[in-house]
Order: sequence, then structure tokens, then C-alpha cells
Amino acid sequence: MGKVATSEALRFMTDCLKAVGAASRPAQQQAELLLQADRLGHPSHGLNRLEYYINDIKTGACCPNNEPRVLKESASTAWVDANNVLGATAGHFAMDLAVSKAKDTGVGWVSVKGSNHFGIAGWWAQKAADKGLIGMAFTNTSPLLAPTRSKQSALGTNPIAVVAPAENGESFYLDMATTAVAVGKTCVKTVPNEGLWSLSTLDYGVSYVDVIEMQLRKGEPIPKWWAQGPDGKETTDAALAYETQCLMPLGGAENTSGYKGFGLSAMVELFCGILSGSLYGHHIRSWSHSGEGGAADLGQCFVALDPGCFAPGFQHRLADCMQHWRQLQPTDPNLPVLAPGDKERKNFFLENYLLA
Amino acid sequence: MGKVATSEALRFMTDCLKAVGAASRPAQQQAELLLQADRLGHPSHGLNRLEYYINDIKTGACCPNNEPRVLKESASTAWVDANNVLGATAGHFAMDLAVSKAKDTGVGWVSVKGSNHFGIAGWWAQKAADKGLIGMAFTNTSPLLAPTRSKQSALGTNPIAVVAPAENGESFYLDMATTAVAVGKTCVKTVPNEGLWSLSTLDYGVSYVDVIEMQLRKGEPIPKWWAQGPDGKETTDAALAYETQCLMPLGGAENTSGYKGFGLSAMVELFCGILSGSLYGHHIRSWSHSGEGGAADLGQCFVALDPGCFAPGFQHRLADCMQHWRQLQPTDPNLPVLAPGDKERKNFFLENYLLA
Repeated sequence: MGKVATSEALRFMTDCLKAVGAASRPAQQQAELLLQADRLGHPSHGLNRLEYYINDIKTGACCPNNEPRVLKESASTAWVDANNVLGATAGHFAMDLAVSKAKDTGVGWVSVKGSNHFGIAGWWAQKAADKGLIGMAFTNTSPLLAPTRSKQSALGTNPIAVVAPAENGESFYLDMATTAVAVGKTCVKTVPNEGLWSLSTLDYGVSYVDVIEMQLRKGEPIPKWWAQGPDGKETTDAALAYETQCLMPLGGAENTSGYKGFGLSAMVELFCGILSGSLYGHHIRSWSHSGEGGAADLGQCFVALDPGCFAPGFQHRLADCMQHWRQLQPTDPNLPVLAPGDKERKNFFLENYLLA
Repeated sequence: MGKVATSEALRFMTDCLKAVGAASRPAQQQAELLLQADRLGHPSHGLNRLEYYINDIKTGACCPNNEPRVLKESASTAWVDANNVLGATAGHFAMDLAVSKAKDTGVGWVSVKGSNHFGIAGWWAQKAADKGLIGMAFTNTSPLLAPTRSKQSALGTNPIAVVAPAENGESFYLDMATTAVAVGKTCVKTVPNEGLWSLSTLDYGVSYVDVIEMQLRKGEPIPKWWAQGPDGKETTDAALAYETQCLMPLGGAENTSGYKGFGLSAMVELFCGILSGSLYGHHIRSWSHSGEGGAADLGQCFVALDPGCFAPGFQHRLADCMQHWRQLQPTDPNLPVLAPGDKERKNFFLENYLLA
């Protein structure tokens, strides 16, 4: 299994996207987005996915050199047509707009239609946090989540990301799928996170189905609460999960409050497809590495909020909270309590060190 | 066990609050808030809690006749000092402001410090939805949630409420604690929801500890994922749970993504105490029916967003989604799939019918 340095991976991804027709800027922005996912320990949203973006461009499902445009605007809001550009281009356009409005009025709320997969949601929330604001980002995704009581899927893994700056260069970083376990999690098992990329072709295009199939071939179970079988009940049987392709919402079954995870996924859809007029919920096509599904027309939502509009001392209180959580008495002395973002931060620094 | 009609319960609650010194308006607003909780099938936040509010006023922990005031304002934001009024007074003041700003700029984001328990969060989000907006409401609460890996609690049940109007008078209604099971849930077991109030004194002031103690006395277990024992692991043993008083976050243990529920509870605290400069997280005192804890100084957050600023057809798409979810093939033919809010709506209509 080969290994490669950061700069080389970035160049490789940029060149691949340019080779199929993307201009330099969108190609580089998309490559940076994928690089960051690997850096934070989320390889499912990194280089792993490059083939998907390449084939989306090759088949014409995505038009990387279009320009997003504002369709409607108020002092604190904008409705944007991403015009089928790469997710990175749409994200920069929309979050720049949200940040600018937040600087003027305290809040910027931007709703985007006609977009494509925008990588890790946390990257976009972080973009606002880098300007001293609270950033939030949401996207709808292809149906994989079975609403509570349902045998069928109807919503995506619909992530929620909130990032906020704290004292001493720290930040609160929450980026979570509203399913019990994200599709991404599966890839952590298949792509060793050594702080470098695995370029093994086996790790390309790993998707939900691929991983279930892998477990199926190995004769191993899938994690508890991950998926449900054709009877609509949770299963650890890879064969059953392969048949249904239904992830369970955060919280699992109804008697363990899975309806809250369903509600959160629905809330994200409300902010994304319902607000923007893109495709939504059950209307969204599935995304594959072949690029054959046509235009995604995803809906996304970008919010920036200026903490300076509220009580002084925001960054201090946030750091105090995070530090308090870390110092709580742990259940297992070897597993300290983490504040949201600690895991990603650890991956980030580790990798930088190894690649220095 | 006695039964009583809506109008009489409202009069009774209003008079109780007035008897301890609240003026007519705040007393009535608080009573309406409690009434609505019972109406929607959440008796834990209704008449059940009246004693708490009464004693908060009697002991001077809450000052019902103060006036909230705006400390800082921008086009789309306001920072408010609730000035230790009842939660209902703070909520009306803040959400009115958020709605007014949303009508002007598309978004209103109001952060409140110095507040008291504001009942069901959904009531406040609904207030914005009644004006055709998307409403959101959040509050911090006394520490009961143990962050993932922690033996100790450090955050509250910190609810998230989002309500949005859909076509034909329908609405999307999400109001959820970020713990696996809310304190409120326990009361559903102890207060039969017959569409009327139970006035049995046994049901007064039911709290987390009371209910665990009840299960303990009955020798019955508490629900799975509900709480953790002194070893920091989930327990169904009421005696252990009574000892720790630690609720688990939505998602349960770490290996079933409980860290997401913790992250969501932390996000709510970010919007509430961290943003407003009220007490936050581990600094919040516990709330009891005796009113002896002193001023609560809770932080709350009220958001209104105008869907008219984005794609036309919002209400239609939302209704389409909700209808689609309801028609999904259910796991159990007797348990149809519900859209967020269907449960509350059913309780509401049922009760109105019974009381007609």
C-alpha cells in the first residue's frame, strides 16, 4: 500500500479534476475540501470520493465551470442557485455571502439549490468560525435513513455542522450525520488512518453498499444500530442490511428515541431542500461513483452568526465549558472525556507532525 | 382522581400565580404555557410544574412583575436581559422581537439571559410559525446529562424546537430534549393522559429523582439508555440511577453515537448560556419544587426565519414531505409512520373533542 505526502495528494486531486475539464480554481477548491476531510480523520469524504466527482464531471452530471448566482436577497438572507457547480464552489460562494451579511446585520442565512456533494459540512462552518463568527452548515443527501416505524428509507444522512471560535485559538467543532452511524464511519474501518492517505484502489468509492458487501463477504456482522433489516427492525446481519440499505436514525429504534434522529434529519431537510426548492427527501437520486445518476440538485444551507452582537466574553465562556468537559471524571481512565472537535484536532496535529 | 375542564384549569393556574404576587398578564401567560404542554401530551411541562413556579415566586427566586429589556441590538439580532421574569414573559418578549426582525431582514436571532424555565420549547417556535415563519427555540437547563465517557453530569436536557407552517394548516413540529429520554417522558408514565388533567397531588412536582425513586420503591427497572450508573455505564437499575442522577445523551453510549447527543446538547448551550452570558452548563443550579435554589439565570435563544425570502412553494414542499413519510410502509401495520408533530396534533384534537 503506497503512501503519499499532503502536497502531492493535493496536486494529484487538482490535476485529476482539471483533466476532466474543471478550471483551476474550482479544481483546487474541491481538492482542498477533500484534503481537509482526510486531515481530520474522515477519509470517507476525502480522496476516497475523488472518483465520484471526476465521473460526475465526465458524464456532465456536474458543470464545474458554471457560476452560482443569487436569485433573491434580503438584508440577512440570500437564495442561491448553485447552477450545478462542484460543492466546493457552491460552498465558498454561499458562506462568503452569509459571512458578509452577518458582519452587516448580525446574521447571514443562505439557502442553496442546484448544488452537488459539498464534502464535510464542518469545513463550511469552520470557514465562518475563521472570521470570528459562529458557522453552521447543512446539506441534504440521498435517501438512506428509514424514518422511525418505516421499512423504507426517505431521508439522507443529513449532517449538522456548528463551529465556533473559543479562546486561545480553540474551537467548538460539531459535524455529525443525523443517522446513528454515518456512511463515512464505515470507511474508517477500511482505510487505515495513519495520518497519510492510502492510495489502494480498494479504498476508492467506498460506499454504504460496498462496505456492507465487504462485511457480508467476510461473514462479519455490521455494528449495532447501524441498519435495519427488511422487517424494519435493527439488524447486525450484513446480508439483511445489504438487502434493505436502510440506516437507522440517531437514537436507534423508537423505544430508544430514534424518532429524535429522524426529526433532526427532517429538520436539516427543512433547511435545505424545502427552503431552497432543490430536490428533497425521497426525490433525491442516489449517488454512485459512476456519475450516471444525472444532476444531483442538492439543497444546502449556510448560516453565520456574529457572537459580538450578544454578551461580551463569548470565547472565554466557550473555552471554560470545553475545558470543564475534558476534566470530568472519565468512566475509563484511559479514555478522557472529549469536547466536540477534540478528535478532529488530534488527527490534524498528528498528521501535520508525521508529514513535516 | 379528579378531573377538570380546560377553562377551569387555566383559571386555577392563573389564580395560583396571582395569589403569590404575579400580575394578571404574566400569570395568565404562564398558565397558558402550562396548559398547552398538557394539551400536547407533555404533562411534565404542564400543571405538574405549577408548584415550582409558585414557590420560585414565593421565595423571591423569580420576580414575575419585572420587565425584560434589550441590552444590545442589531438589524437581525438582540441581546436581552429577562430580568428574572417568568419564562413565559421572557419568551413572549424575545420571540416577538425575533419575529419583528425576521419580517424586516429575513432573520431574527434573540439571545436571552436572566430567564427562568420557559416550559415546552415548541410553544415558542410555534409562536413564530403562527406568523408564517420558521420558529426555533432553545434553552439551557440544570445539569443532568453526562457527556460521553464522563461519570458526572455537566449539561442539561437542553431542548431543540423547530416549528414551520405547511400547506392546509399543517405544521412541522419538532420539540426534543437532547438526552436519550427527557425528564418529561417519565411523567407520561405517572400522569395518565386522558385528555384531561389529573389533579392528584401525587403528580405534582414530579422530577427525575422522584420518578427514579418511584421505580426504586416499586422494584421496577428504568428504561434502557435512560441513565447511567456510578461506573459511567448504562443501567436499568433504578437504585444505581438514583445514586448518579446522570441521564445519557441521545444515541446512548459511545459505540451507538451518544457523543452526537452530547454534541447537540452542547450546541444548545452554545446558543443559550454561552451566547447570552447567563449561567451555563455546570454552573446552573438544580431546580426543585421548593424554590430554594435562588435565581436560575437561564439562557435561552429564539430564532425566526422568513421562508418567503427563499424559494416559492415552501409550504407545499413541506406538506409533500410530511405526507410521504406518513405513507411509508410501516414495520408494524398498527403503527403508522408519523411526521414530526403528528403525535402532538393527535393529542390536541382528541382533547378538544373530549372537552367540547
